Amino acid sequence: MMRTSDVAVIGAGVIGLAVAWRAAQRDMTVTVIDPSPGSGASSAAAGMLAPVTELHYAERDLLDLTLDSAARYPEFVTELESATGLDVGYRRCGTVSVGWMGSDLAALRDLAEFQRALALTVETLTAAELRRLEPLLAPGLPGGVLVTGDHQVEPPALVAALRTGATFAGAQLVEQRVASLRVDSETVVGVDLADGSAITAGETVVACGAWAALLDLPGDVELAVRPVKGQTLHLSGDPGALSHVVRGEVRGAPVYLVPRSDGRLVIGASSEEAGFDLRPRAGVVHDLLRDAQALLPSVAEMELVGVRTGLRPGTPDNSPLLGRAGVDGLVIATGHHRNGVLLTPVTADGVADLLETGTAPTAWKPFDPLRFSPVRVDREASWS
Amino acid sequence: MMRTSDVAVIGAGVIGLAVAWRAAQRDMTVTVIDPSPGSGASSAAAGMLAPVTELHYAERDLLDLTLDSAARYPEFVTELESATGLDVGYRRCGTVSVGWMGSDLAALRDLAEFQRALALTVETLTAAELRRLEPLLAPGLPGGVLVTGDHQVEPPALVAALRTGATFAGAQLVEQRVASLRVDSETVVGVDLADGSAITAGETVVACGAWAALLDLPGDVELAVRPVKGQTLHLSGDPGALSHVVRGEVRGAPVYLVPRSDGRLVIGASSEEAGFDLRPRAGVVHDLLRDAQALLPSVAEMELVGVRTGLRPGTPDNSPLLGRAGVDGLVIATGHHRNGVLLTPVTADGVADLLETGTAPTAWKPFDPLRFSPVRVDREASWS
Repeated sequence: MMRTSDVAVIGAGVIGLAVAWRAAQRDMTVTVIDPSPGSGASSAAAGMLAPVTELHYAERDLLDLTLDSAARYPEFVTELESATGLDVGYRRCGTVSVGWMGSDLAALRDLAEFQRALALTVETLTAAELRRLEPLLAPGLPGGVLVTGDHQVEPPALVAALRTGATFAGAQLVEQRVASLRVDSETVVGVDLADGSAITAGETVVACGAWAALLDLPGDVELAVRPVKGQTLHLSGDPGALSHVVRGEVRGAPVYLVPRSDGRLVIGASSEEAGFDLRPRAGVVHDLLRDAQALLPSVAEMELVGVRTGLRPGTPDNSPLLGRAGVDGLVIATGHHRNGVLLTPVTADGVADLLETGTAPTAWKPFDPLRFSPVRVDREASWS
Repeated sequence: MMRTSDVAVIGAGVIGLAVAWRAAQRDMTVTVIDPSPGSGASSAAAGMLAPVTELHYAERDLLDLTLDSAARYPEFVTELESATGLDVGYRRCGTVSVGWMGSDLAALRDLAEFQRALALTVETLTAAELRRLEPLLAPGLPGGVLVTGDHQVEPPALVAALRTGATFAGAQLVEQRVASLRVDSETVVGVDLADGSAITAGETVVACGAWAALLDLPGDVELAVRPVKGQTLHLSGDPGALSHVVRGEVRGAPVYLVPRSDGRLVIGASSEEAGFDLRPRAGVVHDLLRDAQALLPSVAEMELVGVRTGLRPGTPDNSPLLGRAGVDGLVIATGHHRNGVLLTPVTADGVADLLETGTAPTAWKPFDPLRFSPVRVDREASWS
């Protein structure tokens, strides 16, 4: 069996579904292929939209991209919710970052200085100010920093809305595994599926996160993407325990607590180099609970609803791989690492532009999918 | 709709199903009623069969009963497995009890002295002997005690086999909730079900664990049974991490690790007075993982498969309520607290005797269901 489509999108997580939605809105025929839509990294993500709080040293290019995407979020959500009638749990809640010990706080404040040097808005909180903002945090915390501009969505709700939005706009969803890319004279012309069927497409978008590492690309192209396992804990308690997202450094280890408005709480996240192993590790559950309880003692009384693991698509510089990869018919949109949910609007808009006009946004230059690839270097060498 | 049966058994956990199996074997018609068979305390139990290790001071009568039941276990399992073709995971693995600190070990050894005074076989282990027996336990543990006679079953497998055994023997299983006992002239004559139907029976056996506390009994009889919440963690790892059940006292808190032969590990268990609340509490998960890792560091690397909670049917003296409760047509078989799986054979045999002959085993005198009931005292007073 053979289907034909303008665009084939490999992967139905937030990135793939948003690309499909945007492309279908521009009257392209779109097929999204995923054996289990929304079950990958999107299902384990906490949904923090935190360009400032997530910023680390030397990630200046990434900051510009995350700020751009954060700025697009309100309109993106409004449009998606009105198109689908679904709520994606978008909240402007701000982030409070707290230190457990003085040394944890000192590291946070150093980072805040760097962030302020980039003209970002970061407020320093004394211990007393922290207690006023979040009275149920552990007594004795030395202080923190506040970023009021951060917001959150609920990733499973976002997946559901994007799936509905893409479908309403005319995209087809095929719940199959991609076996391989179809290649004709060095050009990608669609995908072969595990059930023996195929989809031919003028453009094929790789949006399958860490699994892109397992895809054979033509021309010896290799994507510098690897799985970075993350575990999140999902709890339930009384609403109002926290009014902001709380991020903490506890004895040097990061932990975050993302409160939903109905009393649910997401605690995250580990960062493990464990290949494609998705099993939740007991030691990680222990450490996350220990550190979360250290910051918010009432965590101990909450119900543990579940543990989810996902594989972030990590890259050497923690920034995504976006755009062409030197192969006709192929577009890359993966490597979003910790920022997949945040970068969904800017990625979807940019890929739709690229599909429609043939040109990627100029701001994507630093995110060239081949920037780590020896193949790229060889080619450049052959041009000189 | 009305069914008629010689015996109605309320509750399809290990106790109710074993009673049904034994009664059906003696040619009684039996109906077992449970809205969700095997989903109560039986589903969360670890399956340790440990009359000696579970013994506490001043529980001498209970010890006789648990030793009796433990002695019946091998034949009980052989008969059940050959009747059903199912494996219940019965293993003679012995129990090693270890102390975390010297004071934990001192308490264990004091208890071992008491156990030895009752002619039970308990061996003292030095730190070096402990390491030889269980080399993967944390280095530096001060020592322990060994009870070679303890064994284990897998409760979900036992439930499945008992259900099959009871059915093969002719018992009927009705997946409904009991609304109330049917009472005619102070005699229990069956049960009314939540769906409006009824089952009439010459004898009705209360084997619904902690839920017996919610059952209205005739004649103002009250059962001194209450829910004692327990949580167990279910992990998976490489086989061979432990060859014995390991019980520990870690800074005064008890924890146990029950290894299955295929690498699974059950960690238990909390003991919480929380009414009928079945939600797993995050603080308990944390504490169990902390204490289990303290004893067996490789727990941190194991997969956390799930958390189960159950409600033990607790009584004031930690011993079951067995036999008549001063009401014709009514037999009580609950209150097994921490020993339900262990006490299954002796309970089922005794209830079947009582149903067949009208007389409970004489050894059950200490377990009179009304021994805590003020009603009993009033009646005796009126007889004098």
